[in-house]
Amino acid sequence: MNSLKPFRIDNDFKFFLLDQRLLPYKEVWVLIDNYQEMAAAIKDMIVRGAPAIGIAAAFGYAMGFRDSENSPDGNIYMKDVKKTLAATRPTAVNLFWALERMSTLYSTGTDFKTLWNEAFSIALEDEVACKTMGKFGADHITGTKLRVLTHCNAGALATGGWGTALGVIRELHAQGRLDVVYSDETRPRQQGSRLTAWELKRDGINVEMTTDTMAGHMMKSGLIDCAITGADRIASNGDTANKIGTYQVAVCAHYNKIPFYIAAPVSTIDFSIPDGSFIKIEERDESEVTHINGEIQTAEGVKARNFGFDVTENNLISAIFTEKGTLLPPFNTAILTLR
Amino acid sequence: MNSLKPFRIDNDFKFFLLDQRLLPYKEVWVLIDNYQEMAAAIKDMIVRGAPAIGIAAAFGYAMGFRDSENSPDGNIYMKDVKKTLAATRPTAVNLFWALERMSTLYSTGTDFKTLWNEAFSIALEDEVACKTMGKFGADHITGTKLRVLTHCNAGALATGGWGTALGVIRELHAQGRLDVVYSDETRPRQQGSRLTAWELKRDGINVEMTTDTMAGHMMKSGLIDCAITGADRIASNGDTANKIGTYQVAVCAHYNKIPFYIAAPVSTIDFSIPDGSFIKIEERDESEVTHINGEIQTAEGVKARNFGFDVTENNLISAIFTEKGTLLPPFNTAILTLR
Repeated sequence: MNSLKPFRIDNDFKFFLLDQRLLPYKEVWVLIDNYQEMAAAIKDMIVRGAPAIGIAAAFGYAMGFRDSENSPDGNIYMKDVKKTLAATRPTAVNLFWALERMSTLYSTGTDFKTLWNEAFSIALEDEVACKTMGKFGADHITGTKLRVLTHCNAGALATGGWGTALGVIRELHAQGRLDVVYSDETRPRQQGSRLTAWELKRDGINVEMTTDTMAGHMMKSGLIDCAITGADRIASNGDTANKIGTYQVAVCAHYNKIPFYIAAPVSTIDFSIPDGSFIKIEERDESEVTHINGEIQTAEGVKARNFGFDVTENNLISAIFTEKGTLLPPFNTAILTLR
Repeated sequence: MNSLKPFRIDNDFKFFLLDQRLLPYKEVWVLIDNYQEMAAAIKDMIVRGAPAIGIAAAFGYAMGFRDSENSPDGNIYMKDVKKTLAATRPTAVNLFWALERMSTLYSTGTDFKTLWNEAFSIALEDEVACKTMGKFGADHITGTKLRVLTHCNAGALATGGWGTALGVIRELHAQGRLDVVYSDETRPRQQGSRLTAWELKRDGINVEMTTDTMAGHMMKSGLIDCAITGADRIASNGDTANKIGTYQVAVCAHYNKIPFYIAAPVSTIDFSIPDGSFIKIEERDESEVTHINGEIQTAEGVKARNFGFDVTENNLISAIFTEKGTLLPPFNTAILTLR
């Protein structure tokens, strides 16, 4: 079985995204041929997960360069490319980080193949980073027969491969120290039940799903040893934005004295903001809440709120696993060492 | 518009339950003709909600008596009736309370019509109790333009009418002090989005739904003034069992210094148990978690945990509203006064 990735590249620079909206029911690969299609794919969540969004945007930027060669002013065109890709999702910082890296390379005067290879490097580096942080995480976490809760999907599908939170879990599994992964459903978009459960089952890792209402009860009942999630943006003090519902998991873990961990590459850290209050929380269409798979789940006409992310304050986080090592509180000083 | 109730009685003692599994999509009234059908209806959750289960069981008991008149030994038959009805759901104590009340009356030597009227009295008293506790709750809660979070359905559908938690909310609405009710979806069975949102919208009360992942974030963001739920069983010290996910709401409210209230009739109090550790938590079929409306929501073969309830400890509860008044901490002494 091939190692799972959210994208595939065929000969002649043909780039495909695995349509994560259709998993686990169908595996459909969508050809992405230009930067506009890439922007739409990120916005519509064909691809999601902070590191994977960064990778997709980087390839989109390279595609934009390819098309810019037919335009009268390449610089203006590339500004538009960057702006369009950056405007797709507001919370995950890896998107902006990857676009910065690509546009810095562009500004040195370069060619399409170099930009394409740079995007490919971002993806490869991310996969290597996941494996490294997975080892750091597994080293830090003590015990065997571990029962680990995770929220959303911070797996191979969300990264260049392997996964951040699921990277730690994969390493624990490889070391024979994992009993079971409890995967929160993660409404509204169900990335936990649809993606995490599918991804782990595919790779022979013992996973059970729960609804988002059960984590607290299971912690209190002694069924969970630790919780671990990915991150969409980490502020300089360690405050961490991640998929909506992460905050509740962290509060319940804190209240029940269970470790709560974040796993994320250094590219997720936004050194420009002092704390989580500066992170823009995406609000998405209410139909994601009122509907599941296109079917209404409430009375006709009922309105809904739909926050895409929440911020977990640093005091609720036991450790942050990165590819450069494990960060421990106080996070503001620990994070400064990475700058 | 008629006042909403979970049951309807026609001439000649014809008893119908509103099939709550089909709401809000269809309003189907199911004829319940004997105690076996009533037991199945409670088990399958055609009717749900602690007080409503008690009422349904009481009518089932009366139906059992009607049929016992054809049996050789009425006492043995009625023991079976009671046992069957009591075995339908393990957590809500109102079920056992109502059956005790009915069997005590039966043991005095009585007739069908008296038993039927007793069941009817239980329903009527519950509706009156809801209105009374609603007033106590609204008196206790301060402020106007209130934004109130609720979990599951503790409304007219869950009671003899009016509702417990939603009874307080209906009273706040009547007093013009309500801005909006946020209704948690309440997976796995979505009683929040399907029942609470439908019930409140039907009655012109401003309601918006959220997923179960959003309550914590909304509390932290200053969007919620208080949370209020019903209860399935309250121990002598105030520890409260309610729909799975209630505990998380209470923990997040506590952490964010937002009041968390319980509204429940005195029949919900189990004076026989000192604390919540004695409450049996129902585990239900995993298909309720893996499926929604009959459609699978995860990868084929993924297992799930499905806890029906959780216990919120008394230290997380700001007040308990009953028809006999508002209970305040320390709940163990407050509850003793009701015994």
